[in-house]
Amino acid sequence: MATHLLDPDRLFSSDPLQRKISRGLYEGVKDLPIISPHGHTDPAWFAENECFGDATSLFLVPDHYVFRMLYSQGIPMESLGVPRIDGGPVETDMRKIWRLFAANFRLFRGTPSNLWMNHVFYEVFGLTEAFSVATADAFYDHISAELQTDAYRPRALLDRFNIELVATTEGSVDDLRHHRAIAGTEWARRVITTFRPDDAVDPEREDFRENVLRLAEMTGEDTHQWSGYLAAMRARRATFREFGATATDHGHPTAATADLSKAECETLFSRCLSGQASLADAELFRAQMLTEMAGMSLEDGMVMQIHAGARRNVNEMVFRKFGRDKGADVPSAVNYLDGLQPLLNKYGNEAGLDIILFTLDETNYSRELAPLAGHFPCLKLGPPWWFHDSPEGMLRFRQQVTETAGFYNTVGFNDDTRAFLSIPARHDVARRMDCRFLATLVAEGRLGQTEAEELSRDLAYGLAKQGYKLG
Amino acid sequence: MATHLLDPDRLFSSDPLQRKISRGLYEGVKDLPIISPHGHTDPAWFAENECFGDATSLFLVPDHYVFRMLYSQGIPMESLGVPRIDGGPVETDMRKIWRLFAANFRLFRGTPSNLWMNHVFYEVFGLTEAFSVATADAFYDHISAELQTDAYRPRALLDRFNIELVATTEGSVDDLRHHRAIAGTEWARRVITTFRPDDAVDPEREDFRENVLRLAEMTGEDTHQWSGYLAAMRARRATFREFGATATDHGHPTAATADLSKAECETLFSRCLSGQASLADAELFRAQMLTEMAGMSLEDGMVMQIHAGARRNVNEMVFRKFGRDKGADVPSAVNYLDGLQPLLNKYGNEAGLDIILFTLDETNYSRELAPLAGHFPCLKLGPPWWFHDSPEGMLRFRQQVTETAGFYNTVGFNDDTRAFLSIPARHDVARRMDCRFLATLVAEGRLGQTEAEELSRDLAYGLAKQGYKLG
Amino acid sequence: MATHLLDPDRLFSSDPLQRKISRGLYEGVKDLPIISPHGHTDPAWFAENECFGDATSLFLVPDHYVFRMLYSQGIPMESLGVPRIDGGPVETDMRKIWRLFAANFRLFRGTPSNLWMNHVFYEVFGLTEAFSVATADAFYDHISAELQTDAYRPRALLDRFNIELVATTEGSVDDLRHHRAIAGTEWARRVITTFRPDDAVDPEREDFRENVLRLAEMTGEDTHQWSGYLAAMRARRATFREFGATATDHGHPTAATADLSKAECETLFSRCLSGQASLADAELFRAQMLTEMAGMSLEDGMVMQIHAGARRNVNEMVFRKFGRDKGADVPSAVNYLDGLQPLLNKYGNEAGLDIILFTLDETNYSRELAPLAGHFPCLKLGPPWWFHDSPEGMLRFRQQVTETAGFYNTVGFNDDTRAFLSIPARHDVARRMDCRFLATLVAEGRLGQTEAEELSRDLAYGLAKQGYKLG
Repeated sequence: MATHLLDPDRLFSSDPLQRKISRGLYEGVKDLPIISPHGHTDPAWFAENECFGDATSLFLVPDHYVFRMLYSQGIPMESLGVPRIDGGPVETDMRKIWRLFAANFRLFRGTPSNLWMNHVFYEVFGLTEAFSVATADAFYDHISAELQTDAYRPRALLDRFNIELVATTEGSVDDLRHHRAIAGTEWARRVITTFRPDDAVDPEREDFRENVLRLAEMTGEDTHQWSGYLAAMRARRATFREFGATATDHGHPTAATADLSKAECETLFSRCLSGQASLADAELFRAQMLTEMAGMSLEDGMVMQIHAGARRNVNEMVFRKFGRDKGADVPSAVNYLDGLQPLLNKYGNEAGLDIILFTLDETNYSRELAPLAGHFPCLKLGPPWWFHDSPEGMLRFRQQVTETAGFYNTVGFNDDTRAFLSIPARHDVARRMDCRFLATLVAEGRLGQTEAEELSRDLAYGLAKQGYKLG
Repeated sequence: MATHLLDPDRLFSSDPLQRKISRGLYEGVKDLPIISPHGHTDPAWFAENECFGDATSLFLVPDHYVFRMLYSQGIPMESLGVPRIDGGPVETDMRKIWRLFAANFRLFRGTPSNLWMNHVFYEVFGLTEAFSVATADAFYDHISAELQTDAYRPRALLDRFNIELVATTEGSVDDLRHHRAIAGTEWARRVITTFRPDDAVDPEREDFRENVLRLAEMTGEDTHQWSGYLAAMRARRATFREFGATATDHGHPTAATADLSKAECETLFSRCLSGQASLADAELFRAQMLTEMAGMSLEDGMVMQIHAGARRNVNEMVFRKFGRDKGADVPSAVNYLDGLQPLLNKYGNEAGLDIILFTLDETNYSRELAPLAGHFPCLKLGPPWWFHDSPEGMLRFRQQVTETAGFYNTVGFNDDTRAFLSIPARHDVARRMDCRFLATLVAEGRLGQTEAEELSRDLAYGLAKQGYKLG
Repeated sequence: MATHLLDPDRLFSSDPLQRKISRGLYEGVKDLPIISPHGHTDPAWFAENECFGDATSLFLVPDHYVFRMLYSQGIPMESLGVPRIDGGPVETDMRKIWRLFAANFRLFRGTPSNLWMNHVFYEVFGLTEAFSVATADAFYDHISAELQTDAYRPRALLDRFNIELVATTEGSVDDLRHHRAIAGTEWARRVITTFRPDDAVDPEREDFRENVLRLAEMTGEDTHQWSGYLAAMRARRATFREFGATATDHGHPTAATADLSKAECETLFSRCLSGQASLADAELFRAQMLTEMAGMSLEDGMVMQIHAGARRNVNEMVFRKFGRDKGADVPSAVNYLDGLQPLLNKYGNEAGLDIILFTLDETNYSRELAPLAGHFPCLKLGPPWWFHDSPEGMLRFRQQVTETAGFYNTVGFNDDTRAFLSIPARHDVARRMDCRFLATLVAEGRLGQTEAEELSRDLAYGLAKQGYKLG
């Protein structure tokens, strides 16, 4: 195995003083339990506790980080086994796909996917050689065999990974069947849901009307009316809270919020429900709903997460052929300052409200987000998101945010992943990078050692628990 | 006292070679006199030379860096003693406020406020323990007692701090009474004013009309007319120059400039004065006034400072309750290139004109500001401003500006502060960070040692003096 | 000579471990042949192989990096010998200009021009003293004398510089006379052209109509018609390919593309040709032409380069007096995501298409460009461009791009220069900075040594050859 894959000092600065301090801090946090307050694992895994399938189905087919990079180099999605919407033929030989991945593993050099994969191979499966064309088959066989053992069932891995809590994410019309299945068991405290109502909030979705009507069925409210629609949302929030949810999540193309009169809301909602909303109507409706959701959070205490600025599915052909979330998502410039103004004018000074902001536009870190979070009682900053969930991305976040917002207006790490086996790898990267950042401050006389030790534990564990009200 | 608070190598890179070079450079500049060409100290201090009050009144109540952070964590402004506009009750027990600050001092970890505070405690007051709940009372008592001694009177501190010159900032209708009081004394050379006409230039201010009319009283010009208004501005500039001013300052929400005909100006001015200006009118008027002021600078030689991009008082409730400048200011994206074009087309090639640009939108450093300053003879770049007046902010500034604009299109450091006692701390941070940046260049073979030594003195002293014509 | 000018470790991190790794990697790439796939050298040099003139004419007068900085400090362009459009008097004493440069050489401290100059002085001319007022005359005499020797003729320098291939850039109506002159000789394989049709694509150019009509003469097509215009472009592309071109280049003010109907194109083209195009028409026409050119690239296999976001000639007085490209070019914010959408919807999934994107707006690196290049098969990222062709600029590029796009969606280095003698210096900076970046990854356990060695050769040589189809 290549030395770097084992390097116990990986991700620390190579400056000897900083490395020594980093090591010490990391030693104190590496074994803390994992809190995963925002992610996309499948609750069925934890409810049913079935064995995972083969290596390819687990690691590659569902991981858009992986197939976007392969696709960018001209490798057809079909040859990676990504299912076509029309059911047309795609590669089904999982070993063959695995080999294709191995043959192109060099593409991931310098990317977090490479770090995560190597961590999983080595730490989770004990594979001590470097992954390559030469070792691809052996890796495939070993992983696929291990996955059939009890030690690799989802619940066993929750234990082994020391995951104290993992939050999944479900849409507003989800029946929460898997969370219902574990309700009342010991697992219910460790696997909770998150309320993500985009499916019935975004009028541009093709299933918007269908979902709004489904909400009526689920709640008994008349969702043809604005008031009934809001009541249905309140009811669903209550149901989600029954299954452990402490947070909501909102993925919006922009950070726009609005504060319309009731009459304006009623008209706008009707237009959206009738399918006659313009793009501007849709944007305004989403904007209004962020403010409504903030109001409901103030009522029921749920933490509100806003993920703004991902332009989704920008490759039309890929969208038509393979559907949503196939790696064709690109950040766009976001204006948080103007966007949030209506919501903040209404609720910004409520200390009982918790809104966590995420951005893909890093220019916002120092220009808008840190100054906003460093003033408004209701605002906190989420960790670096998606493309920026990486060593350099994490450094930029801390370097650009800390001096204005401090550490205590941030909320620890989110792995934000559907790749369950990579959760420890991702938290490990975050812990190492935070220790590294703190070590720099200590080494440069900007922070005391004791303060750094306390902060390292807060960043690795405490702030996530507190920020998401998981106490 | 925690070791880091005393670290003589603080803020230098921990790389031994870079640290050694940094130390050497710093040794050569640390005792240079302080030039503070842009700031917000109160000229009454230097005119009256009264003792400062207690620790809380001096450090906390007026420092929006401090109470914004405390407020962001849900601590009410009232409990911090920030006065309400309506005269309603706020905390008046200064010791209690001080204890509250101590109890939350952890919030400032990693921020420049922390650095400045520790510097003041240790260097100015000789307090060698760490500031905490445990030491809060002792600190309060010690500081408050020292402040009553002659050694801590404003003029004594000017000497002790080795401040060669400090510029205050006054509005266009200020009577300059404090500067008048010291006129003719030895202090007049060390304490000068700066002409900041926003009060009579920004039609969105509630006191715009009142200030324009006040200008008439002060100058005898008919400020109901555009020509009289300009004449009044010229007269006020002349008066400010009598009290030492070498510079003007302009805080505008955007970088827009304009070059309208006289007839257009007359109509626009009338509309603004009558209170019927639209937001677009107000923006255009401010834009035109930047160009007018540049023209006047060309006549009278005053250096023109443009601070663009701060959206002020964005928290409506806080603004209504506590007024301006209460920590609710957030940067917004700025377009310097299009904004400055009209002014630059008119005056950009005048080598006799000096315009210093400041931004809160760091994306402008490499994209617009360094290229502009690296071409136009009239443009120089001010130091990193406000939120970016911090170690990381200073590094980003040098890293993103130097390769395109060099060092000689920058103008040294501004402390920009009303916190008099922190002036040495702030200059010390700037000197250390500049020495650190230069040390990196030397250590990486990008700059000679002799050149670095010369530059370190220029950045700490020479460029400020020259850039603000303080020779 | 000052030590730093000779530092064999220049540009490497001063961290001993990183420096050691950097050195090792650099050792393996420093002598690789130079591929210069995009630049602005004069093909006449290689066709005629005449001696260059004096030091000033070669280094200063044509180098807008140099005179922009001198001009920014108030030194008139006339005194630098920059020719005036009206033929008015400018300095013609080349030695005097050279001395003026020497007297102001401090302005370039910390800039890449300084690095390049020192490299040329030392490595190309063997001048071992520091350049200064004291040595200016000796340098001038030595350089000017050397330039008259055969060893400094263009072809000899191509050999000495180990330049395997250099691409020049010619407009669509260029007669390619110099490339014709070397056709069939051994030099034709080493000196190739690039097709840059901006002269007949940008309706805002004063010579647009003239150039479109000239295209008709050159190709026999009726360029009054949209179809004939396209046919003429195709013909010119074919001719350029005869003279080695493997790439086209497009310098546009924005990244806008369009996908209009044929009828819309015909009308728009007529309007542009008639000189009645609005600014919006001109923008739309350029946008459409990027898509047309992508279509032609798919037909003929030429690699397409898009350089977007330079606002040219923003100083009106300088433009009127001295013409284009006189250092008054400033980057502006660019929206790649929306801009490229029409083109990408049409051709984005064509693995046979190669589009290389360049930006001057670094905020795009992590926000738009890396995510786009990390997904679309047709997209690759060009190296840091113009103002960012510098040590810090290169670091920011790798730090912000690699984690999302990897290394293999980039295409090696471009020197992009008309300063022939600085080509080795520029490639040396790029090789050193890439080795440095890789060394950081190795030292921090993020990349294996063997992988880094392979990557260092790819970044220095292989990717340029492959990315520009120079195979």
